[in-house]
Amino acid sequence: MKQATSPSAAPRAFLTRLFDAAIAAANPGQVVPPALPRPPKGRTVVIGAGKASAGMAAALEAHWSGPLEGLVITRHGQGREGAACRRIEIVEAAHPIPDAAGREATDRLMSLLSGLGKEDLVIALISGGGSSLLSKPLPGMTFEQKQEITRALLRSGATIGDMNIVRQHLSAVKGGRLAALAAPAPVVTLLISDVPGDLPETIASGPTLPPSATRADALAIIDRFGIDLPKTVRALLDSPAADSPAPEDPRFAANTHRVIASASQSLNAAKATAEAEGVRAVVLSDRIEGEAREVAKVLSALALACRDQGAPFSPPVVLLSGGETTVTVSGTGRGGRNSEFGLSSALVLQGIPHIHGLAADTDGIDGMEENAGVFLDGATVARLHAQGLDPQTLLGNNDAYRAFSALGDLLVTGPTGTNVNDFRAFYITTEVP
Amino acid sequence: MKQATSPSAAPRAFLTRLFDAAIAAANPGQVVPPALPRPPKGRTVVIGAGKASAGMAAALEAHWSGPLEGLVITRHGQGREGAACRRIEIVEAAHPIPDAAGREATDRLMSLLSGLGKEDLVIALISGGGSSLLSKPLPGMTFEQKQEITRALLRSGATIGDMNIVRQHLSAVKGGRLAALAAPAPVVTLLISDVPGDLPETIASGPTLPPSATRADALAIIDRFGIDLPKTVRALLDSPAADSPAPEDPRFAANTHRVIASASQSLNAAKATAEAEGVRAVVLSDRIEGEAREVAKVLSALALACRDQGAPFSPPVVLLSGGETTVTVSGTGRGGRNSEFGLSSALVLQGIPHIHGLAADTDGIDGMEENAGVFLDGATVARLHAQGLDPQTLLGNNDAYRAFSALGDLLVTGPTGTNVNDFRAFYITTEVP
Repeated sequence: MKQATSPSAAPRAFLTRLFDAAIAAANPGQVVPPALPRPPKGRTVVIGAGKASAGMAAALEAHWSGPLEGLVITRHGQGREGAACRRIEIVEAAHPIPDAAGREATDRLMSLLSGLGKEDLVIALISGGGSSLLSKPLPGMTFEQKQEITRALLRSGATIGDMNIVRQHLSAVKGGRLAALAAPAPVVTLLISDVPGDLPETIASGPTLPPSATRADALAIIDRFGIDLPKTVRALLDSPAADSPAPEDPRFAANTHRVIASASQSLNAAKATAEAEGVRAVVLSDRIEGEAREVAKVLSALALACRDQGAPFSPPVVLLSGGETTVTVSGTGRGGRNSEFGLSSALVLQGIPHIHGLAADTDGIDGMEENAGVFLDGATVARLHAQGLDPQTLLGNNDAYRAFSALGDLLVTGPTGTNVNDFRAFYITTEVP
Repeated sequence: MKQATSPSAAPRAFLTRLFDAAIAAANPGQVVPPALPRPPKGRTVVIGAGKASAGMAAALEAHWSGPLEGLVITRHGQGREGAACRRIEIVEAAHPIPDAAGREATDRLMSLLSGLGKEDLVIALISGGGSSLLSKPLPGMTFEQKQEITRALLRSGATIGDMNIVRQHLSAVKGGRLAALAAPAPVVTLLISDVPGDLPETIASGPTLPPSATRADALAIIDRFGIDLPKTVRALLDSPAADSPAPEDPRFAANTHRVIASASQSLNAAKATAEAEGVRAVVLSDRIEGEAREVAKVLSALALACRDQGAPFSPPVVLLSGGETTVTVSGTGRGGRNSEFGLSSALVLQGIPHIHGLAADTDGIDGMEENAGVFLDGATVARLHAQGLDPQTLLGNNDAYRAFSALGDLLVTGPTGTNVNDFRAFYITTEVP
C-alpha cells in the first residue's frame, strides 16, 4: 500500500489523487472488459468512433475470446491508443471538421455491417467526437449542403439540441441508422459520455441508438428558425427517406447499450477516494456549462461560503464538479477552459487561505497546451504580481496558460486516452492547528 | 394565522413567501429599532447616506426618545421613505453619478459633525449607494481629477477593491474620515449591506469606519497599474494629508458598528420560512457574482443534479443564493439581471418538470423595469414558443423582460425600501403522487 501524505499537509498531491481516480474510472482498459457481452455463435463485428474509441477497441481485443473483426475511427493523434489491435482496424480522421479519411472510413464501416445475421454480434464503441468522425449525408444531398444547414442553424440561435435533431435526420449514419444496417444482428453499444447529462442517444449523435425525436420534429425546427433549405433537401426531409429508425422498432429488441464511463462516474470515484482519505466530498453537478470565467466566480463563491459560514458544507470538504465550460475568445493569449477557470477563481479567492483548487480536462489536454489543468489558491494572485504579471490583464487577453506556466502551477499528465470533460475540485481545509 | 396553500400545490406562492421573508429581514422598520443605542447625555446627531438610509432614518426617529437632529442623503425617488421624518432632514441626490445636490449636502453633513463632545452621540445610517451620494475630494484636488483617476483605474483592469482603496485615500469623507470629524463624540454605525461578503468598511466606502488599507497601499496600486496622476494629486497622495484614520486610533475606541441587514441574513430568513413550511432549504452562497446568464447555467445545473441524482441535496429542497450578478449589454431590449438570469435558467431547464425558480432584486426593481423579478420553470420555453417568441433571440437581444412580461410571469412588488442585492430560489419538488 502506497503511503500518501495527509490531504491537508499536501493539498495539491491530494487533489491530484482525486483527479487520478476520476481518470481511472473512465479508462477504457478498466471500464470496457467488465461490460463485454458473451461471444456469439456467429461473427463479432466491432465498430466505433470517437476520441476514446481506439483505447476501447484495444481493451476489447485484449479481453475477447473468439473471432473478431472491425473498424474504429478516432481522431488524428489518438490512433496509437489502439496500437495493440491486430484484428480491429484503427483509422485516424480529422476532428472537429470531417475530412476525406473520415468519409472513406465511414463508407467501409457501413459495408462491414451488411449481410450480418441473427447469430452475429455487433459491438459499437462510441465516445465523444464520434459525430464528426463518422460522417455521411443522406443519399440525395451533399456534404456542402449539410454544412450550410448547420451554419444557418448556428446563426439562427438554435440550441445544440435542436441542431442535433436536424442533423440526425439528414445523416445516413446517425440517429440509429447504423443499428438498422446491422439488423438482424443484435448491437451492444458501449459508450463513454462527454455529453452533459449522459443521454445515450446524444453521445456522438447516437449512431446505433434510435432517437426519440422524429422527422416531424426536425421539420418543425427548420420552420421555427426560418431556415431556407435547398429545394431538393426540403423534398428529402419531407419524405419517409429521412425518417430515422424508431426506438420501438422490433428489429432492435435484442439491442442493449450502457454508459461505461461518464463525468458522473468519474466524479463519484474522486469522491470515494477523498472519503477513503477521511475528507468529505460533495459532487455539486456533473453537467455545468457556461463561460469558464463566470462559472469560476459561482463555484468560488460556494467554496467561500463553506469556508466562511461553514455552509452549505462545513470544512474540511471537497467540492467536485464536472460538465463542459466554454471560452469566448477575444484575446490573443494561450490557455484552455480550465486555465481560464483557474485564473478567474484565483481572482475571487485572492488573499484567502484554506481553499485549494484544481481545474483540469479529463482528456489530459486543456485547450491546445500540454497541460491537463492548473492548481490555484489564495496566494496565486500575489505570486503573479510578484513576478510582474497582472492576472486581470492575462485573463482579459485569454492568456491564463501563461500565468500558471510562470508559477509552475500546471498539472501535466499527457493524453489520458479518455474524455469525460471537465474535472474541478475545491478543497476547503480547516485552520491548520 | 394566515392559511397558506402547501408549497408543492402552489410553488410560486411558496417562492413569493420566501422572497417576502427575505425582504422583511432587511426592512429598516424591522431591523433598525432593536439595534439602536441608548440616548446619550448630550446631543444625538444622525448622519447617513444610501438607498435605504431614508427608511432607516424614519425607523430611528419613530423609536427615539430624546432630542434628535441630523441629515441623511438618499437617491432621487427614495426620499419619500423618510417622509415621516420631522427632526432628521432627508436630502435626495443623484446616483450613481454624484451631482451638485449631493456635494452641497455632503458639506452640510460634515459641518453637523463639528464641535461635538464626548457626551454627544453620532448615529450613522449607511447603506448601498452611499459612496456616490456622499462625495467630496480631499482639499487640494478637484472632482474632475478624481473622476479622471477612477476612469484610468477602470481602463487599467484594477479590481473594484483596488479602486476603492485609491478612492478612499483621495476622499475627504470616506475611509473613516467622518468618524474623525465627529471625534471625540462616539459613533454608532448601522449598516445595510449590499456588498458581497459584507465587510463593513467596504459598504458605501466606509465613511465612519477606518480602513485596514493605508496610503502606501493606494500608492502601490497607482504604481502597479501605471496610472498617470496630475502632479498636484501625486504630491497630495505622497503627503500625510492623504492618510486615512487608522482603525486602532484611540479616538475611535468607543465607536461601534453593526451590519443590521445583509444578503446572508435575508437568505437565512427565507430558509427559516421554507423550513417552517416543511421544506428543507440550503443557502448556497450569499455572494455570487458573474454574468447573470452564465451564473444561471451553473445554478440550474445544480438544481438538475438535485432532481436527477438526488445529490448534493435530495428533493424536496430549496436552493437559495444571493450576491450581485452583472449584465453585459450588447442588445437593445429591456430587462435587468434577474430577468436575464431567469431566461437563461429557463433554457437550461426546458421541458424538465419539478423545478420552479424565482430570481428577483431585493430592492424591488430589476434593472429599469417595474418588476422585482421573474418566475420560471420547465414550461417557460414551450410557453414562449407557443406565443411565437424565441427565448434564445430574446436573450441575445437582452430582452428578457419582454419574455416574462408576455407570459405574465413577473413578480411585481414595487420598491421595497431596502437593498441586499439578488435573491434567487430554486424549489425542486418530488414527483407529485
